[in-house]
Order: sequence, then structure tokens, then C-alpha cells
Amino acid sequence: MQVAIPLYPRFTALDAVGPYTVLAFAPGWTVTFVAATPGPVIDDKGGLSITATASFEDLPRPDVLLVPGGPGTVAAAGDEKLLSWIRAAHQHTRWTTSVCSGSFVLGAAGVLAGQKATSHWGWADRLPAVGAEHIKQRVVIDGKIVTAAGVSSGIDMALILLAEAQDAETARTVQLAIEYDPQPPFDAGNPHTAPAARREAALSLIF
Amino acid sequence: MQVAIPLYPRFTALDAVGPYTVLAFAPGWTVTFVAATPGPVIDDKGGLSITATASFEDLPRPDVLLVPGGPGTVAAAGDEKLLSWIRAAHQHTRWTTSVCSGSFVLGAAGVLAGQKATSHWGWADRLPAVGAEHIKQRVVIDGKIVTAAGVSSGIDMALILLAEAQDAETARTVQLAIEYDPQPPFDAGNPHTAPAARREAALSLIF
Repeated sequence: MQVAIPLYPRFTALDAVGPYTVLAFAPGWTVTFVAATPGPVIDDKGGLSITATASFEDLPRPDVLLVPGGPGTVAAAGDEKLLSWIRAAHQHTRWTTSVCSGSFVLGAAGVLAGQKATSHWGWADRLPAVGAEHIKQRVVIDGKIVTAAGVSSGIDMALILLAEAQDAETARTVQLAIEYDPQPPFDAGNPHTAPAARREAALSLIF
Repeated sequence: MQVAIPLYPRFTALDAVGPYTVLAFAPGWTVTFVAATPGPVIDDKGGLSITATASFEDLPRPDVLLVPGGPGTVAAAGDEKLLSWIRAAHQHTRWTTSVCSGSFVLGAAGVLAGQKATSHWGWADRLPAVGAEHIKQRVVIDGKIVTAAGVSSGIDMALILLAEAQDAETARTVQLAIEYDPQPPFDAGNPHTAPAARREAALSLIF
């Protein structure tokens, strides 16, 4: 199974690397970071750059397309080279997916029209602007479009994709390999139960 | 707060990028990837390279040292340049930390002698070989040495560090910003309850 993760400046690192690690651990899966031009691409915090090893032309027909989010989504949603690659690749994918605000890049490419989808809680209310219906779930599957909520939710999405594409036992094995038995020290990650003041503070860290 | 994450060939991507993302979201925290020589460093699956932007000499006194794991740990534990940087930096850190098999790099540097620690479940039994006592917890804090279990546990460790160094509200705010409200599709990440056959299969994905 060939997975392509397009990178663009100011993506959020964990959006891309969570699913990358899950899927790259699966036997027979290859995950490739792509960009208009191969080379390092810098994240939203300026401290991390991941090298795209292939151009869009190098990988026109991935089985899975996975678009990460981040504040750079706004510019990426106007990048016609990225959008036309997504549009063409989407015709042939088994799944077209996103994490976080990556759903708005899919939306700008026109592939979310009439679809159920999700995004980071700070962005999700705007999904109707790209023709999508916002479903308040961590991972939303609507046909071959699979979208995940904010940043860390890409790990859960990748395990779900793996179980669907391969089998549940492979997904469980990868989950064990990466010791994904989460024990967050606080119960603070759910935006629907978070106090308004904390939501404001969290948004100020993102934009 | 200045955090240094040393990279070495065949590190596991999520070990480094989970804590990176948590800590880089915190106001006033700077996270830098370091290596003997700045430049891209390739991960264990060969699909991802992150650029180290500083050399060991550039960052002799980070507040927090965070060593990721991966199959490259074996070679890294014999890399005297890395080990001597860790030894010297550890004298001045607020915390010296590791994720996954990164604890064996700390061990090889001599800083785990007499300490309580943990590691990836596939490696943890060998902790006494570096003088450490294995504690079966996801995150083990023993003075200024903080060690986390396998791969994904670095996210939990980073939130704990943030709460200790700054305050719980900042950690909760970052947790909300990255929407860390984990919902794994399976209850399969705990090695102590996993069937033996799946443990074997998971180990075959790692080594």
C-alpha cells in the first residue's frame, strides 16, 4: 500500500508524523512525503523540517492520500499545484484523508462537496464553507473520504485505516509496537467539555 | 525553556515528534533537533528525515535533554561524541529524559546508574544492564531523570514535564490545542495484557 503525505510550509509536525509512524510500521506499507519540489519543508513552529523525497509528478497515484493540517493550510488551500495533484490523485485513491485543518486543503480541491467530515475544533465550524457537513467525531469515514480532528487524532485515524485496509490484527500489532496505550495526565483534550477560557488560550497557541 | 532532542540514524519518528509537538506548542519553549553535524537524519523506516539544525557544540547546556529511541539506539549507544555531550549536558539540565529505547543511550552515557527507569516493553528487561531498575509505568520520574515507555508514550511524558516545569493549566491548554483526547480503535497497546503471539509479531516490526 502506497501512502503519500504532501507537505507544505507551516504544517503541524504531529499531524503528519503520527499517521506516518503508524502506517510505516505496517508490513508492506510505504509512506512517502511529497511536495511540489523535493526538499526540506518547515513546520508551523519553525523548529522542525521534514524532507519531501518525491515531487507530485513522482507519485501521481498513491493508494492513500493523507493531508496534514496546520496554520499553513490557509496558503496551501490556494496552491493550485497542490490542489490539482490532489484532484487527480483522488480519482484513483482507495482513501483520501486529512488530519486537523488538512480537511480545508481537501475542501479547496473540491473533494469534500456533499461529504461528512471533521477538522480541528478551532476550524471545524467552517467546514460548510467547503461544502462539507461537520460531524463531531474524532474520525469521520464517508465513503473513501476519511477525516480526523485535531493534530493527535491522526494516530487514531491511521489505526482505523490499517484495520480497514488490512485487518484488525495488523492494526492491533502496530498499536502494540508503538505502545499506544495512552495515559494523558489530564482529561483536557476534548474541546466540547473544555472551559471557554482554555479554548481561547489554546487557539492563541495555534494561529 | 530550551529543549534539545538529539537525532541519530534509525530513530523512531514519533518518539521525537510527539514530545517535540507538545513542547513546541508551549509559550516560551524552544525545541531544537541536534546532531554531531547539522543536517538531515533518517529514521528507522527510511521514509522520513528530520533536519538537525544545531551541532552538539552549539547547544551544550539545554534545560531539557530528550533522547528518542528506535533500532538505531544500538549504534547510538556506542557513539562516544553523543555520549560525552549527554554526560556534560546532564550536569546542568533541569531534566534528562528519554522515550522508548532512548533510555539505553542515557544508560550508555552512565546517567541511569542507580535510577528507576522505563523503556519500550521490548527492551525494558535489559535496563539492569545499564544499572537501572525497571519500573513498569508509562512514565517514570526519578529525580531529574524522566523516562517514558515505547514510542507514543513520549506525548504523555511531555505533558507531564510541561505541567511540572510550568503549570498544569499550560499543559491542559497544549493538550487541548493538539486535541489529545485519544480514542484508539482497539485496546491493544498494553504489553502486559497482549497475547504472546501478538507481542512476537510486534517485535518483528521493530527490530
